[in-house]
Amino acid sequence: MLKIAVLGAGRIGQVHAANVAHHNDAQLAMVADPFIDNARALTALYGGTAVKDPLDAINHPEIDAVVIGTPTDTHVELMLAAARAGKAVLCEKPVDLDIRKALEAKQALGEHTTRVMLGFNRRFDAGHSEMHQRIRNGDIGDLHQVIITSRDPGLAPMNYLKHSGGIFRDMVIHDFDLARWILGEEPVEVFATGSRLFEPALEALGDYDTVMVQLRTASGKQCQINCSRQAVYGYDQRLEVFGSNGMMLSDNQRDTGVRRYGAQETEVRGPLLNFFMQRYAEAYRREMDVFISAVSNDDTVPVTIHDGCQALKLADAAQLSADTHTVVNVD
Amino acid sequence: MLKIAVLGAGRIGQVHAANVAHHNDAQLAMVADPFIDNARALTALYGGTAVKDPLDAINHPEIDAVVIGTPTDTHVELMLAAARAGKAVLCEKPVDLDIRKALEAKQALGEHTTRVMLGFNRRFDAGHSEMHQRIRNGDIGDLHQVIITSRDPGLAPMNYLKHSGGIFRDMVIHDFDLARWILGEEPVEVFATGSRLFEPALEALGDYDTVMVQLRTASGKQCQINCSRQAVYGYDQRLEVFGSNGMMLSDNQRDTGVRRYGAQETEVRGPLLNFFMQRYAEAYRREMDVFISAVSNDDTVPVTIHDGCQALKLADAAQLSADTHTVVNVD
Amino acid sequence: MLKIAVLGAGRIGQVHAANVAHHNDAQLAMVADPFIDNARALTALYGGTAVKDPLDAINHPEIDAVVIGTPTDTHVELMLAAARAGKAVLCEKPVDLDIRKALEAKQALGEHTTRVMLGFNRRFDAGHSEMHQRIRNGDIGDLHQVIITSRDPGLAPMNYLKHSGGIFRDMVIHDFDLARWILGEEPVEVFATGSRLFEPALEALGDYDTVMVQLRTASGKQCQINCSRQAVYGYDQRLEVFGSNGMMLSDNQRDTGVRRYGAQETEVRGPLLNFFMQRYAEAYRREMDVFISAVSNDDTVPVTIHDGCQALKLADAAQLSADTHTVVNVD
Amino acid sequence: MLKIAVLGAGRIGQVHAANVAHHNDAQLAMVADPFIDNARALTALYGGTAVKDPLDAINHPEIDAVVIGTPTDTHVELMLAAARAGKAVLCEKPVDLDIRKALEAKQALGEHTTRVMLGFNRRFDAGHSEMHQRIRNGDIGDLHQVIITSRDPGLAPMNYLKHSGGIFRDMVIHDFDLARWILGEEPVEVFATGSRLFEPALEALGDYDTVMVQLRTASGKQCQINCSRQAVYGYDQRLEVFGSNGMMLSDNQRDTGVRRYGAQETEVRGPLLNFFMQRYAEAYRREMDVFISAVSNDDTVPVTIHDGCQALKLADAAQLSADTHTVVNVD
Repeated sequence: MLKIAVLGAGRIGQVHAANVAHHNDAQLAMVADPFIDNARALTALYGGTAVKDPLDAINHPEIDAVVIGTPTDTHVELMLAAARAGKAVLCEKPVDLDIRKALEAKQALGEHTTRVMLGFNRRFDAGHSEMHQRIRNGDIGDLHQVIITSRDPGLAPMNYLKHSGGIFRDMVIHDFDLARWILGEEPVEVFATGSRLFEPALEALGDYDTVMVQLRTASGKQCQINCSRQAVYGYDQRLEVFGSNGMMLSDNQRDTGVRRYGAQETEVRGPLLNFFMQRYAEAYRREMDVFISAVSNDDTVPVTIHDGCQALKLADAAQLSADTHTVVNVD
Repeated sequence: MLKIAVLGAGRIGQVHAANVAHHNDAQLAMVADPFIDNARALTALYGGTAVKDPLDAINHPEIDAVVIGTPTDTHVELMLAAARAGKAVLCEKPVDLDIRKALEAKQALGEHTTRVMLGFNRRFDAGHSEMHQRIRNGDIGDLHQVIITSRDPGLAPMNYLKHSGGIFRDMVIHDFDLARWILGEEPVEVFATGSRLFEPALEALGDYDTVMVQLRTASGKQCQINCSRQAVYGYDQRLEVFGSNGMMLSDNQRDTGVRRYGAQETEVRGPLLNFFMQRYAEAYRREMDVFISAVSNDDTVPVTIHDGCQALKLADAAQLSADTHTVVNVD
Repeated sequence: MLKIAVLGAGRIGQVHAANVAHHNDAQLAMVADPFIDNARALTALYGGTAVKDPLDAINHPEIDAVVIGTPTDTHVELMLAAARAGKAVLCEKPVDLDIRKALEAKQALGEHTTRVMLGFNRRFDAGHSEMHQRIRNGDIGDLHQVIITSRDPGLAPMNYLKHSGGIFRDMVIHDFDLARWILGEEPVEVFATGSRLFEPALEALGDYDTVMVQLRTASGKQCQINCSRQAVYGYDQRLEVFGSNGMMLSDNQRDTGVRRYGAQETEVRGPLLNFFMQRYAEAYRREMDVFISAVSNDDTVPVTIHDGCQALKLADAAQLSADTHTVVNVD
Repeated sequence: MLKIAVLGAGRIGQVHAANVAHHNDAQLAMVADPFIDNARALTALYGGTAVKDPLDAINHPEIDAVVIGTPTDTHVELMLAAARAGKAVLCEKPVDLDIRKALEAKQALGEHTTRVMLGFNRRFDAGHSEMHQRIRNGDIGDLHQVIITSRDPGLAPMNYLKHSGGIFRDMVIHDFDLARWILGEEPVEVFATGSRLFEPALEALGDYDTVMVQLRTASGKQCQINCSRQAVYGYDQRLEVFGSNGMMLSDNQRDTGVRRYGAQETEVRGPLLNFFMQRYAEAYRREMDVFISAVSNDDTVPVTIHDGCQALKLADAAQLSADTHTVVNVD
């Protein structure tokens, strides 16, 4: 029975706390949040002790592992503290908004790397994961093209956007990780187009609301990502892979399979799963399951800080490409 | 080059005339209609001679085959006249509304039976026909259940309904033929439920607007038909077959594959193909093709007056069952 | 915090125990099963005390409510004992295989009826439930026809079938309840067809492997149910409703939205959710939620023993109809 | 009744000849092909006179319009000859493989431009055309992103590829035209990635088998095109448009709506419409209809040599971009 502390009792911390609490092989032992009432709300529901300081949880002798769901600029510090305290770590993306800081953290982790997992939740989506497995099994032959659709249901508040690092580092970073994982190769060439098509205020931030990215690997595999901060019809998350022997699509999902036929429209379906907490609810459960299983069995975690750094490099390259209208090579 | 006369220049006659005219192995030689202007409208488009009296066409020495699209109560007379004149015949359903008259016609046809085809167009729908073939190939193992959905987009005018013979003989007769053809066995037991759920005026006609039928064959195969005179969302034509080794569905079709996603509804599709002239346009072409090919090659036509009589027997049984709330056996 | 005992630690008891344990307003306090090891396996996972005798749980002063998941022939006895002990009850269907015993239990319950909920889980399926609500909202106008597809993935063991009460009372009973609930009226006329198309051994039991049922209400609403004990492609659960202003379908669901395109087949999708524990997992959670909420708020439960008795009457009528090839009226 | 000559009796000439012959307002008067037997095969089917020299048809006084389906390097010469002879023209894409020659032709046409239509058939696809209309109606608000999938079922013969002008000018040119038409603005920035992933022999031709293109308009609208010479699952033609108020998809189409469910796979659909002659059969008919109607009514044709030149400029830019790994601006 793994004793786990969740650091940060915000939106994502709540997801992780529930998944820990309902897991048969783990126990929610502590929740840390400077807003202690938020931490207490979670321990009231799921058990465990509420504390203010994440270091109190990290350094508590009974804690085996910590889940980091705190603000981005604390990730590196807490991750390193936990690793040094001998704790396994599941850390939300991104490692940091600054690639140099992220790379330093990677180096600092050293041998601890194998026990620090990055929370790229989409790898654990049942559909994406089935496709990844089928590609590896050779079901579509050699992989040629990957197409990722990634659209949020609505623009985040401007206050959030100011500190987000921009659309590439904040949002498309998920898709860069997905692209690397699905391609099975590192992209070496990045071209990105950024537009402000509905929120002109983003200009002051040097940010975009609508972007497209095109990637190429050394062997010539190709990937296109399309991304928008605002899809009025919901959270649009699709993945397409094309190869020498076939193609696969992973489509959006809905709460129900109801289709309606009326005098005006002869087939209408209900809303998409609304946002990441619904759409990827099962993915977060599987992510936690994989983390707990790896830690319990002393296995290397399947997503590491190296993945976090590589995705961040692609995000930086895309930002540069969009800003300068040039093709950017990535080493 | 088969020389064909189309008898009746109404809605269905127009469909057949166009298909004859565009066929590479046939020629529209005559169109007969007491409203000679209707006949002339067709010959102006597609060539051929317009006449008033169908017998003039039937007995014309240059005519090889006739297509009967006249009112139901003339079918038997014209069919027999054409057969006796040595002409091949494609006759619209039903043979007649009176089963005795239909059975007499069957007997009277004698050896001509093999050259008189009944126009059960749905057998020639690409989807239904693919399913029929796959069942025969054993793709779903032994057939267990058949489910037919058959809903018209709107109620026909009361004046038409008065002479239609009722919903079972006029409309469900297509589904009875489909059931027999797909089941590959004769139904021996019929149970039907008839309701007047939106047109009370049908009571005076002893007719129904909404019906369900359940059939059983001697070997225990089962079939359900659901039928309505008015589906506000369009012409709903579906077929499902279930067997020991699988299941198949033949769904409705649309003009385009466009799907729309908006703020209110996240998937909307356009209208179904509106009515039989659109939905079964290709089926009518294939029906004509099969007819022309059978006649040209001196083959037996694939749908005969026997099929017309059997479907009519089932319609009569269903009417009796719905009227009396009893199970009706069919020999 | 409601203290709940689960009676019966078999397949369905395990589902209920997990849902109780994960519920924020309830606690799994006891599990009763004569095979005490089965009870202990559940309490080891979710907490609570394991006992052999269900009456020990029913009569324990700390228990507020019991969930009955024991063999069918114990339902009435345990339900009455619990009701008399002042406990709320969630009882699996059917009430009993004998309608007289079920009706006696209904009478015996008296004022306790409002706290004894019948476990017709399908009413709590998100899709079915959305459709029920939309019909009540008038989205499809007046309801005319209901079509229920209900096929199990494979035949249960013969030993189970012997004591099941037959396909109508064991399996179709769910669909009879669904039909009543969706129709919003009592069926008054039942016609059923039963066949043995793949398991001849059922003849000795007077049972069928493949059935179709047609129902009519007093106002003329119509319903067709098609049912098989064995669909090789999985657990097929569909619902269609048709009315004066439109139609709705609730389709099967899958684990993922992946579609594959290969050289042989250009669209392939994966398996349906395999069986009721997967397909209706969320429905069982919502059922438990509704039960706990009704009991906590002292509300009448939404599905009562009356519903259990009415569904059983329809099952009896269907059995009689199939056995005698006659139409059966239900009061 | 427009008298039309079809120049070139190859694959595409056969499509046009049939559509002319079946059109109510036109007549197939001549077919020209140096392989006179090919021309005669068509006139045997549809009427008209067969000639060897296209100029004989162009200059024949009874001919009102010509359809150019000859090899690409003859397009300009025949188009100009026909225009000078006062004939309306429907010319297959591309105008020419050399943009200078195409621009000279454009200038040379002068006032004849309005009667020379370019055969970008995809604009006349019912689905694409519905989407174009809906965008103009404002159904999805402001257009933000366009995604075009364009994959051929199999690699053309190497002999064809040698003279094709390369994948961008031969194949993606259709998608460049579609992009311009749907975007409603000229792309000003082009980035293309070209790979040889299955046919290394294309290296000698400086050609690619697999490409991706990213476009941007002056106002920031974005477009991605993915393209392959070989999709083993068939001719994959999809279009997606995304805007401030919604999204639309135009999916592939099939011959039938049959879906199969078996023990291994629970939903299988049949092949896509195989290639352009099937997939765009209806589009070719509508294209001819629009051409004949424009010419008959003395209207300007809706697709002109200007469109042909602009698409070719984008193809040239894409080729340069892929060859040099740079972003290419288009004036």
